[in-house]
Amino acid sequence: MDISIAHLGPAGTYAESAALAYSTWLEKTTGNSSILHSYASIAQAIRAAAQGETQMAVVPVENSIEGSVTVTLDTLWQLDKLHIQQALILPIAHALLSTAPDLGAIEVVYSHPQALAQCQAWLEQYLPAVPLVPTNSTTEALQYLKTNPQAGAISSQRAAQLYELPILAYPINDHPDNCTRFWVLSLEPPQSGSQTSLAFSLPANTPGALLKPLQIFAQRQINMSRIESRPTKRSLGDYLFFIDLEANLESVMVQSALAELQGCTETIKILGSYDILSIE
Amino acid sequence: MDISIAHLGPAGTYAESAALAYSTWLEKTTGNSSILHSYASIAQAIRAAAQGETQMAVVPVENSIEGSVTVTLDTLWQLDKLHIQQALILPIAHALLSTAPDLGAIEVVYSHPQALAQCQAWLEQYLPAVPLVPTNSTTEALQYLKTNPQAGAISSQRAAQLYELPILAYPINDHPDNCTRFWVLSLEPPQSGSQTSLAFSLPANTPGALLKPLQIFAQRQINMSRIESRPTKRSLGDYLFFIDLEANLESVMVQSALAELQGCTETIKILGSYDILSIE
Repeated sequence: MDISIAHLGPAGTYAESAALAYSTWLEKTTGNSSILHSYASIAQAIRAAAQGETQMAVVPVENSIEGSVTVTLDTLWQLDKLHIQQALILPIAHALLSTAPDLGAIEVVYSHPQALAQCQAWLEQYLPAVPLVPTNSTTEALQYLKTNPQAGAISSQRAAQLYELPILAYPINDHPDNCTRFWVLSLEPPQSGSQTSLAFSLPANTPGALLKPLQIFAQRQINMSRIESRPTKRSLGDYLFFIDLEANLESVMVQSALAELQGCTETIKILGSYDILSIE
Repeated sequence: MDISIAHLGPAGTYAESAALAYSTWLEKTTGNSSILHSYASIAQAIRAAAQGETQMAVVPVENSIEGSVTVTLDTLWQLDKLHIQQALILPIAHALLSTAPDLGAIEVVYSHPQALAQCQAWLEQYLPAVPLVPTNSTTEALQYLKTNPQAGAISSQRAAQLYELPILAYPINDHPDNCTRFWVLSLEPPQSGSQTSLAFSLPANTPGALLKPLQIFAQRQINMSRIESRPTKRSLGDYLFFIDLEANLESVMVQSALAELQGCTETIKILGSYDILSIE
């Protein structure tokens, strides 16, 4: 039976590209075929996997230019059910799609806020006075092109092919090294892989409370490749921390660090232990 | 002469409310009157102050529910000119505005993505199947109400008064303690206040490099009330850190910490030292 995978849709989003690449890799390495299901938001895709509507969800967690996808971190913490099975790194190259004959004819540009932000300098140089209108996904932006020949949309080359829309400019992202990290989530318990992700809250009103957890990792020579703070949503100035470690969850070092962390954190959650797959 | 203050506009945004409150406070404490200038984006408001178009900018930096306003942090780091003169904390209470007779008639809801996210649970309970459409500001959402009686917009009570639009539901934010912290920025050098904000990058590929700066503060009993990581935009996994300290920049402890930080950071910037003003 096909493995069902939820992602932010519709077809043509970068999230779908990541899900497709994962699906291909899965078939190559395990022989299992899979089927993709698109959802209207990242939160809905995560919830589909948490409620067993699909077996997995492939969701963006971090972009090299725009940073964390906060809805992914917040939903994962709230649901407290899913674990990360794999990380995927997808290169991002944006295109300007339009039925206009040239850039001079463009009067408005639609796209997902992350894509607009990633092309900010290009837009200021080539389309300085043009209003930028946010949409829920890069694919949703394409619907405006059908009715408005003065509209442009920032999306992928794949979306241009899929919806048979002309590309006016490519690539238009300000930083050539633009890439997005995705997580593959499922209800399976944490596995063991080269990376381990944790999230924890700290006891309230304890000055310097973050130092202790960081010392616990440093004393064991465990490298922390990322730390991200998110509000607990209780009050301003009260945070959760999401941490990625370059270490296997099952290693003696990580196990002993986790034991010691119990004593200096309020709530601690193991998000997963997984390997990283780079997509070409 | 009036002091000119840039903010995200148009009139009716929470940023305008913060700028108005600051303006009132300024007149009361210094006798100086001020004039507000609205800009189409937060980045444009910050740039106006950096280029001397206005003397100050009032911009959001963090919301208690949705976290950092990343464009503020990134633009401040890039421009490297402005300093924080004051922090403002504004309570946020969202209203659903519409010309529809009741909630049952609403077919679409417009607002800024942060406002949509802050009312997520309320929207799921009362308007579960209604599409949510992002806009550039909470005020921009109101333009759809004029032409579409089935449209709703999430905005402030003040915007409802200003644009003479009916309120269908209030308050609709999921967390009653919703508030946003703003920074007042200007070209003036850092002053001295109860809070000090810094940003720094770390030498590349140095495992555990973040631990040292945190130890420098902890050894001096300087409490760090916030740490936020942002991508350097060089490559995935390379970060800047924004830190808020509960200490005066001119204190001996902070000065000695800064001297020691030079040795373990790549670039370090003092963003400002300022007091916090809570707006009722």
